[in-house]
Amino acid sequence: MNSRPIVALAGGIGAARFLDGLTRVVPPARVFVIGNTGDDTEQHGLHVSPDLDTVTYALAGMSDPVRGWGIKNESFRCLRALGKFGSPTWFQLGDHDLATHLFRTERLADGASLGNVTAEIAAALGVRAKIVGMTNDRVRTRIVTRTGELEFQTYFVKRRARDKVLRVRFDGAAQAKPAPGLLRAIRDAQAIIICPSNPFISIGPILAIPGIRDALRARRERVIAVSPIVGGRALKGPAAKMMKSMKLESSALGVAKLYRDFVSTFVVDRVDRIHAKEIEKLGMRAIVANTIMTGLRERTALARAVVRAAGIRA
Amino acid sequence: MNSRPIVALAGGIGAARFLDGLTRVVPPARVFVIGNTGDDTEQHGLHVSPDLDTVTYALAGMSDPVRGWGIKNESFRCLRALGKFGSPTWFQLGDHDLATHLFRTERLADGASLGNVTAEIAAALGVRAKIVGMTNDRVRTRIVTRTGELEFQTYFVKRRARDKVLRVRFDGAAQAKPAPGLLRAIRDAQAIIICPSNPFISIGPILAIPGIRDALRARRERVIAVSPIVGGRALKGPAAKMMKSMKLESSALGVAKLYRDFVSTFVVDRVDRIHAKEIEKLGMRAIVANTIMTGLRERTALARAVVRAAGIRA
Repeated sequence: MNSRPIVALAGGIGAARFLDGLTRVVPPARVFVIGNTGDDTEQHGLHVSPDLDTVTYALAGMSDPVRGWGIKNESFRCLRALGKFGSPTWFQLGDHDLATHLFRTERLADGASLGNVTAEIAAALGVRAKIVGMTNDRVRTRIVTRTGELEFQTYFVKRRARDKVLRVRFDGAAQAKPAPGLLRAIRDAQAIIICPSNPFISIGPILAIPGIRDALRARRERVIAVSPIVGGRALKGPAAKMMKSMKLESSALGVAKLYRDFVSTFVVDRVDRIHAKEIEKLGMRAIVANTIMTGLRERTALARAVVRAAGIRA
Repeated sequence: MNSRPIVALAGGIGAARFLDGLTRVVPPARVFVIGNTGDDTEQHGLHVSPDLDTVTYALAGMSDPVRGWGIKNESFRCLRALGKFGSPTWFQLGDHDLATHLFRTERLADGASLGNVTAEIAAALGVRAKIVGMTNDRVRTRIVTRTGELEFQTYFVKRRARDKVLRVRFDGAAQAKPAPGLLRAIRDAQAIIICPSNPFISIGPILAIPGIRDALRARRERVIAVSPIVGGRALKGPAAKMMKSMKLESSALGVAKLYRDFVSTFVVDRVDRIHAKEIEKLGMRAIVANTIMTGLRERTALARAVVRAAGIRA
């Protein structure tokens, strides 16, 4: 059996759904997820890693199928009680979910690395894929708007991504080191998949860690990306809106342009087949597939298409 | 209206039930509770103050009526999830209760004193009595057994108080200062009530803070204690067993002897009226009342008896 890693760069909900499909069509133990930690946040004194958790819960079969984030059959008793103390409650922490953040925070305080804690959480929940944050160092995504800079979760959750984004920056990224084993996994990978995640706030922070983009460029022939933009709209979240406010073309083609230096194969949705030619002019191979993951069937079908296009062999 | 404080030294469940009665028969705003913080503990990285919370929840009308500790209609989803990570779950933290510890821990990390946080929690829950821990400094009750020393909650909760107690000591007490306003409240009090709490692990830690016992001695004429021992048995918890293992007489009289230097009036249960004479020989006034607080009726009746015996006037 081929044991070479299948690396996936992942944000939150879109990536989680794609990876749920992927780990059903390839051996999960081969999947090496590089997650975004730029949206990590401190809530009520706890270290929360929303994107890592979204992926972990999805691969553990625990995700809330409607919201996409958090845990199914979740309750919010603790949060309601925190509200009585005047604590902010816009960041929705469920009672079950809280255990993850309590455990993570305690382990980090004990001196464990974020990578080790992430692995411990995944193992405890029965996840066989490897999930690592892009770095063990502190990186925080900041959203630059006309009226000033916003902490990422304030922009994303509290203000529901309604601010016009001029620029995104990644506090601490320049000094951060890729997580242990990450560059090696990229080097050894049979394929590297850029999940259908927001290019700016999900994939962007990962690419901002010195060394990662270069490592991907060196493996460009093995890197395949799935467009998060379908018919000019984001599958989930503010990607399309951000492209517009950043004066970029909000289309699959626009994303392809952002990735052209390190991606050789670009998967677009059927409705975007009109872009295939222009994508190929960028020096990329264009693959057309159904990228809308309404259910498990669509997730696995998309994963199969990507596996085929990426030349992943058992 | 008389605004002089009515001070109460309090442990956990027994005190909470008594104070629930007391605050129904005197204006709650006059009640100044000095709580035990020797049983404070760190659980999952959170600062838990079990005795302060038991009293606070009781006075907020939130207590679980059966267990006596914790919150009624509580759920334990977070704790169960923590168990999956291999975290210890013997210290039962409910989902609602967790909010108190999250809030406390975050405020303490922000630099707030335990006293201020305790006041904030009580205010948020609508408690009008003043509740302060005996000190803002770190004091930890340690249980000395034949086989070594135990952290208090390990002895009390995890090992269900089954170890033979040779001695109790209060780590940090000698260096601790009484909480701000505490000595003044004792000095100004119209009456000082020692609640029916364990003399060693509930009242003991409070008395171990330098200055408090002396302040009580100076007001001995105004200090009244309610026996936690009825018919040789503890109303709640291991008090009687501890008295035996510490070679003390496990009776109301035994408790009276421990308190004789700072208590002038000692309330015993009807079944202990036989001890009244001996208690009076210790230089104390003995009062006989029904001290078993099965319900609200009994709690208020006991509170009325204490108020009368202590000469508390509106």
